[in-house]
Amino acid sequence: MVKHALPVTRAQDFAQWYQTVISEADMAEESGVRGCMVIRPWGFGIWERMQRLLDDRIRATGHENCYFPLFIPLSYFEKEAEHVEGFAKEMAVVTHHRLIPDGKGGLMPDPEAKLEEPLIVRPTSETVIGSAFARWIQSWRDLPVLINQWANVVRWEMRTRMFLRTSEFLWQEGHTAHATEEEARYETLTMLEVYRSFAEDCVAMPVIAGEKPENERFPGAVGTWSIEAMMQDGKALQAGTSHFLGTNFAKAQNIRFQNAEGQFELAQTTSWGMSTRMIGGLIMTHGDDDGLRVPPRIAPWQVVIVPMLRDTPDDATLIEYCRDIQRSISHLTALGEPVRVLMDVKPVKAATKRWGWVKKGAPIILEVGGRDMAGSNVSVLRRDQLYRDDGKLNSSIVNRDEFIDQVPELLENIQTGLHQEARARLRANIVRATSREEVSLRFAEKGDFNGWVEVPWCRATGEDLEEIVKWLKSLKLTFRNVPEHSDKTEGPCFFYPDRPAVERILIARAY
Amino acid sequence: MVKHALPVTRAQDFAQWYQTVISEADMAEESGVRGCMVIRPWGFGIWERMQRLLDDRIRATGHENCYFPLFIPLSYFEKEAEHVEGFAKEMAVVTHHRLIPDGKGGLMPDPEAKLEEPLIVRPTSETVIGSAFARWIQSWRDLPVLINQWANVVRWEMRTRMFLRTSEFLWQEGHTAHATEEEARYETLTMLEVYRSFAEDCVAMPVIAGEKPENERFPGAVGTWSIEAMMQDGKALQAGTSHFLGTNFAKAQNIRFQNAEGQFELAQTTSWGMSTRMIGGLIMTHGDDDGLRVPPRIAPWQVVIVPMLRDTPDDATLIEYCRDIQRSISHLTALGEPVRVLMDVKPVKAATKRWGWVKKGAPIILEVGGRDMAGSNVSVLRRDQLYRDDGKLNSSIVNRDEFIDQVPELLENIQTGLHQEARARLRANIVRATSREEVSLRFAEKGDFNGWVEVPWCRATGEDLEEIVKWLKSLKLTFRNVPEHSDKTEGPCFFYPDRPAVERILIARAY
Repeated sequence: MVKHALPVTRAQDFAQWYQTVISEADMAEESGVRGCMVIRPWGFGIWERMQRLLDDRIRATGHENCYFPLFIPLSYFEKEAEHVEGFAKEMAVVTHHRLIPDGKGGLMPDPEAKLEEPLIVRPTSETVIGSAFARWIQSWRDLPVLINQWANVVRWEMRTRMFLRTSEFLWQEGHTAHATEEEARYETLTMLEVYRSFAEDCVAMPVIAGEKPENERFPGAVGTWSIEAMMQDGKALQAGTSHFLGTNFAKAQNIRFQNAEGQFELAQTTSWGMSTRMIGGLIMTHGDDDGLRVPPRIAPWQVVIVPMLRDTPDDATLIEYCRDIQRSISHLTALGEPVRVLMDVKPVKAATKRWGWVKKGAPIILEVGGRDMAGSNVSVLRRDQLYRDDGKLNSSIVNRDEFIDQVPELLENIQTGLHQEARARLRANIVRATSREEVSLRFAEKGDFNGWVEVPWCRATGEDLEEIVKWLKSLKLTFRNVPEHSDKTEGPCFFYPDRPAVERILIARAY
Repeated sequence: MVKHALPVTRAQDFAQWYQTVISEADMAEESGVRGCMVIRPWGFGIWERMQRLLDDRIRATGHENCYFPLFIPLSYFEKEAEHVEGFAKEMAVVTHHRLIPDGKGGLMPDPEAKLEEPLIVRPTSETVIGSAFARWIQSWRDLPVLINQWANVVRWEMRTRMFLRTSEFLWQEGHTAHATEEEARYETLTMLEVYRSFAEDCVAMPVIAGEKPENERFPGAVGTWSIEAMMQDGKALQAGTSHFLGTNFAKAQNIRFQNAEGQFELAQTTSWGMSTRMIGGLIMTHGDDDGLRVPPRIAPWQVVIVPMLRDTPDDATLIEYCRDIQRSISHLTALGEPVRVLMDVKPVKAATKRWGWVKKGAPIILEVGGRDMAGSNVSVLRRDQLYRDDGKLNSSIVNRDEFIDQVPELLENIQTGLHQEARARLRANIVRATSREEVSLRFAEKGDFNGWVEVPWCRATGEDLEEIVKWLKSLKLTFRNVPEHSDKTEGPCFFYPDRPAVERILIARAY
């Protein structure tokens, strides 16, 4: 029996395990401010890697970064009825701009400094960016406008869970305007594909990309697409969304242009976003009972060297030996970038450091002691192959030069291995069903089934859709999306058997 | 007479010229939200370059990035009396977390959703980061803690000016905790030096680094150091600050550690920040009557190729010729990084594009027409040498391969040239004075003197300092700082001639 590094396993209590990984890997913590977290260096380092890699892809598809105000005047929200309906319930409202002494030794908002119009802390920026688009866009020559913003946003949450649901979170939001519907739809799907490939290639997170049904659309959108990832407890996590907004926001905000024939038209707009939620997805995709496992592409440090210091004069030689290894590794290239290698010389016991890096999920951990140095060796621990079959730690002693030569290949293997493992799980846990009873049974039996169900349906809308959603809700289920490029659909609708099915849709419990 | 690209020159109206550069170079614009601006792609691209280069230096000195909450509970501010005194007058206060219909077709804050304790949108994060430090720091082994955050902050401003004074701005704030005062003071000066070298080496902005007098200290600090840059109108711009906080914040927030002897001590803390203000400084340091001039290190695009398209079938060949040049340039390295080269193929007249890039301040603009292509040439425009002595545009035709070979050296020359030009101006415009009358006269005569005055002083404090500050204020002057490594000081204090001077201090009008 392996004794794992975490006090709780996934099988024992998945929700508790999730929180434990976050705290044991020093990723984040409660801040003392309601619903807001502190993202600590290891968690933030992962986010910075995600930012860098996703930002490169956003630029490569022709978008430019900008920055728009944190505050949005209340009146902006009153313009797009559906949009405000979707967000009005959960927004932070700024009403004053000064504090004064309250006469009891404390402070209070100054009644003299009440704002004429309250300001909303942005929950998303369609309205304020739309008003800029209206200024920028006059002629077809100004189109397309392709911009992106990295920002913090606030949606007031009563029940929060770190990275998955917090009142403040970090994200990027892309906003574009186009001359034609065709072009805007193409943009929407292009960014969906950017998210899909980013999730798969960088985060090693297999996802299903597809369109959401009507009831799951972004408030004010004509169509919403998402990528959905399967967590190890079988629940779905929406990991990125891309919206085709048609002319809804353009109408509300008067984004018009003169076309080549001199006539005025409404612009077609899109928006798309991915957030720090992705880090929650990373944990529940790759974590194990020893902590997090970070895919090398997004690991802040890919190789961590732990010298086994003994507080003796020999330590200096050992550190020099390790520095030399560090230098050699830092000149290597893996997965298209210089290898990121750290030497951990903190005044802490070597075993504590080893387990610290195991819990953080550094892809490769090198332990180097006097004996290793004497033999020109290093002891190598791969985070993705931590134990041998007999349950012992799978540490292997390798000649240092041989090891250095292998680093790029090792990192590539770990990246691929994590992806394959998660993909196999995703594939194995999507099943098809033919009746409502079958679905009820599957999800009723606790612990028996951890996966998603795919059913053929008629693409119901309006009240028909509402009825289905109500039934799903009674089982704590939701529609996820209609997978792109899914199998051809024949036969009757799963929900309304008197109608023909036109596509397949995924049903799951979700975060 | 040169006809310049901007409708207003620096000599005519410096303040108006500043706003004109920002709008003509598409850097930023008013957002419609009080005191907040929209930072457009060229302005934000410059900020991203500054971020990247400064972030590298912050990491290289051992700091790690984190993220702390946007909101700070009111009670946190009540703990450090001086600190809140300094900030309480200008903060955005969140009082509600929900909107409801107001019965008149609009929305209003829901009285049922009033927060028990108001939340402040962070004006700076000492208090919330200090409370995290109190959790993180138990033993001397946990020290030093060296962290940094890139974030938006809000300080309510009545009179705003883009990049220089806006209610919301972007910055980085470093926060560190140390076991000893010596170490914390060393950190404070290390970061001052990081700012100094960043300003000089990256932004080509000469600065004076030094300590602020007591009255200019950060609220709650024991000592504040700054870098001060001279704008072209002679005013000073504080471009970065580094604070030694002693144990003031540690006391207020109970940041204690057990030292090696087992006794509890208060930690010594520091904080330091640099903001989007730097972009305002960039404009007023390097801008000229044709717009901005961006030093190559922080230019989002260092070389811009403008093909002279004519809407004829020949365009395809010309574009191919330009793409080929672009490819060759993109493989070059200059100033330690790959050269950033853009080809501008927007559907706009070539002359409009040329002047657009002149106003934006791209370091090198290449214009390529059919005749250039036929001769394997390019027409080169250096933004820092825009006109010949006869006032004509200084465009020169160069063989394309020869030009490509020269690109790295050209960019290095432009970087150095801009720095030297600004440094010469700084040096020429700091004068010494021996009497209050002399200073009054210098600054009284409008337009005559655009610079700073350096005087020997006794390092006055308390009421003596207040008297001086009052006098300075009557002349619209402020103390800037006491330059590091300044000349030895002898003789009497400039302000109180019966006391000996101990150091030299700078006096200037300031932004």
